[in-house]
Amino acid sequence: MVKKAKTSPLRSWIEVPEGSDFPLYNIPFGVGRRPNGKVRCFTRIGNTAVDLYMLASLGLMDELGIPDLRVFKWASLNDFFANGRERVAAARERIINIFSENNPVLRTSHLDKTKVLLPADQVQMLMPIKVRDYTDFYSSKEHAEHVGAMFRDKSSPLQPNWLHLPVGYHGRTSSIVVSGTAIRRPKGQSSPSNAGKPVFGPSKALDFEAETAFITCSNTELGQPIEIGQADQHIIGMLIFNDLSARDIQQWEYVPLGPFQGKSFGSVISPWVVTMEALEPFRVAGPEQNPKPMPYLQTRKDRNFDICIEASIRTPEGSETLICKTNTRYLYWSIDQQLTHQTLNGCNIRVCDLYASGAISGPEPDSYGSMLELSWNGSNPIHLEDGTQRTFLNDHDTLIIRAFAEKQGMRIGFGESVTTVLPAL
Amino acid sequence: MVKKAKTSPLRSWIEVPEGSDFPLYNIPFGVGRRPNGKVRCFTRIGNTAVDLYMLASLGLMDELGIPDLRVFKWASLNDFFANGRERVAAARERIINIFSENNPVLRTSHLDKTKVLLPADQVQMLMPIKVRDYTDFYSSKEHAEHVGAMFRDKSSPLQPNWLHLPVGYHGRTSSIVVSGTAIRRPKGQSSPSNAGKPVFGPSKALDFEAETAFITCSNTELGQPIEIGQADQHIIGMLIFNDLSARDIQQWEYVPLGPFQGKSFGSVISPWVVTMEALEPFRVAGPEQNPKPMPYLQTRKDRNFDICIEASIRTPEGSETLICKTNTRYLYWSIDQQLTHQTLNGCNIRVCDLYASGAISGPEPDSYGSMLELSWNGSNPIHLEDGTQRTFLNDHDTLIIRAFAEKQGMRIGFGESVTTVLPAL
Repeated sequence: MVKKAKTSPLRSWIEVPEGSDFPLYNIPFGVGRRPNGKVRCFTRIGNTAVDLYMLASLGLMDELGIPDLRVFKWASLNDFFANGRERVAAARERIINIFSENNPVLRTSHLDKTKVLLPADQVQMLMPIKVRDYTDFYSSKEHAEHVGAMFRDKSSPLQPNWLHLPVGYHGRTSSIVVSGTAIRRPKGQSSPSNAGKPVFGPSKALDFEAETAFITCSNTELGQPIEIGQADQHIIGMLIFNDLSARDIQQWEYVPLGPFQGKSFGSVISPWVVTMEALEPFRVAGPEQNPKPMPYLQTRKDRNFDICIEASIRTPEGSETLICKTNTRYLYWSIDQQLTHQTLNGCNIRVCDLYASGAISGPEPDSYGSMLELSWNGSNPIHLEDGTQRTFLNDHDTLIIRAFAEKQGMRIGFGESVTTVLPAL
Repeated sequence: MVKKAKTSPLRSWIEVPEGSDFPLYNIPFGVGRRPNGKVRCFTRIGNTAVDLYMLASLGLMDELGIPDLRVFKWASLNDFFANGRERVAAARERIINIFSENNPVLRTSHLDKTKVLLPADQVQMLMPIKVRDYTDFYSSKEHAEHVGAMFRDKSSPLQPNWLHLPVGYHGRTSSIVVSGTAIRRPKGQSSPSNAGKPVFGPSKALDFEAETAFITCSNTELGQPIEIGQADQHIIGMLIFNDLSARDIQQWEYVPLGPFQGKSFGSVISPWVVTMEALEPFRVAGPEQNPKPMPYLQTRKDRNFDICIEASIRTPEGSETLICKTNTRYLYWSIDQQLTHQTLNGCNIRVCDLYASGAISGPEPDSYGSMLELSWNGSNPIHLEDGTQRTFLNDHDTLIIRAFAEKQGMRIGFGESVTTVLPAL
């Protein structure tokens, strides 16, 4: 048996199947609907969903410094996360404690467990947060180089600013949806020649981007930047982010003000917010940064996280092909650098802002985080298990992104982001 | 005396000084704090603020189809506007009726008027809405041409896409503040050569942009575009929008994903939402669109509004200079075209999204809607009344934008957007 990590948890009295994304040590937070229609905040252990409001109603979440335990009753985690990183971490510790195998408080008590614990498949997972602002960064050097080489200049694919700051843009929040939501193929303008008269129609280049995103847990004052040493304290957790992209629409519209209709038709997140506490053991060094970042962006060496990301296409007939294996460790700009740059100009943040990484690509061809790169803009089709091939997504294709961190026998999973492409109207 | 417009209102029993932005016909909506600290929704007639919750408490806002009159008690207009354009219009009509000079219902009744009516200067105006998503368009052809000529190509200043679609980008909502809020000069990266090593420091090119913005009053389904003939029904009103911009930061960062830190440090709106009903008499034809827009963007001839916009700089010593007189009639892409394009790809809208026009410039040099254009990127300084000159904003300068529509003796004013520049930290 592999040696357990220092932070390895006790075992739970709830069964956790081998390879589960949700061991006792994870304790992610989400929002779901019970079979009776009630919407509650949940965590998950193995295949069991834990209703946090019912848990709190039994008095088991008292004395955590959370003044109003009705935060677990709302249809978003916003009010819970507004308690700040320390208190949310304390809540997670308490939950780990309650469900540890040696703790009888709930396990063997007369308290009614049936209201607290449900089979996970009986809970319909909803959007975990009400997203305030959303930024999509462009923090993978490999991804930026691939896009630059395809559309700009092979010998000098990066823009002059790219190595000096985490490039990003503000995105649309209304169309961020939870895993399981189907997305309709967008219509729009595109210009095959990119300069001539545009044409109108459904996108012919519908793509995904494999990303992670982090969520904030505080409100700051306008005019007050966050120093990089403090950035961690404002970040509560992470989830999977699929930034669906219509490349033909994007290509025609994006100069000079950036992506707009090419992105805003739908982005799909995983339902569980994995806490930074759960991810802390998976810190790793990021790629060397040369030139050295400006002082405001200089951070710890282990600024990245070792989180595997896998993207698959499932065809309507049900065959599933893994098309991409990448990792957040490849990111050039880390989440603390992203958040610090976001606030450098005094821009304030709020509880439940969402900051996505941008497509994450690694050095190997099977680690490219978009079909644009995997098929090299259509020149190198992707072969699927069922014998068909793709350059971009077909109608009725399902795109699945999974993510997990694994180390010394401990697996912290994110679950998945799943979406099916509906034909254009 | 000039002939009154057909829609000219009855006179009010509340005094309306000549030239007031707020005659009885206007009835804009805002949110303010009473001297006792209570936050309420208000309208304004002349120099009198009308507490809409107190008005409703007297039973005077019943039978309007607004099921919960506590919407006037909240700290934003969102729930009121969620009742939709028709009901909000009915509320405005009711208010016009209550305050018409021949209506005794409140004027001469035993009802307590002192709780309803306050001197406007005793009410601290707050953010009128909780902004959901915010898009900044780039809909003034003159502005786009000026920027293109300065930074791109004098002979061909517009990008190939510009005449085919309303270019826009998603902006930051957290830093949108109400008139009266001071904004700190942002720090950031810039590159004088635009390709070499960047430098760090306070922006040396802090600018304003004179814009209007419209606000939505409905939630649509993801995947369902809004047809242009229906766009009006989703737009409740407009306000002044000052899109502060740090040109040096923006210039370095904006390729390829658009403006980010150059914009997100602060945008300043006027506190009153002027309804589309009040603005309807000021419809005018827009500039000819050539090439003809694609069918989804084809709209009525009188797609624009005749709204004058004036921008002034007030120096710390108190002297004020009018530096720009422009008009929304110049806009190439109209608000219905903007909203339709926003949703073309299926992007959903929500109650209290905010859509800004982009800087509005006219054909004459004194109608340019930014200092970048007024000073032609610094080459042509702006002379102020006190003998000093500006190319961009100095610390402690106050930038004031006012807007009003005027016709046949009727004036519908927006009030003002005022902000003072604080020195960088």
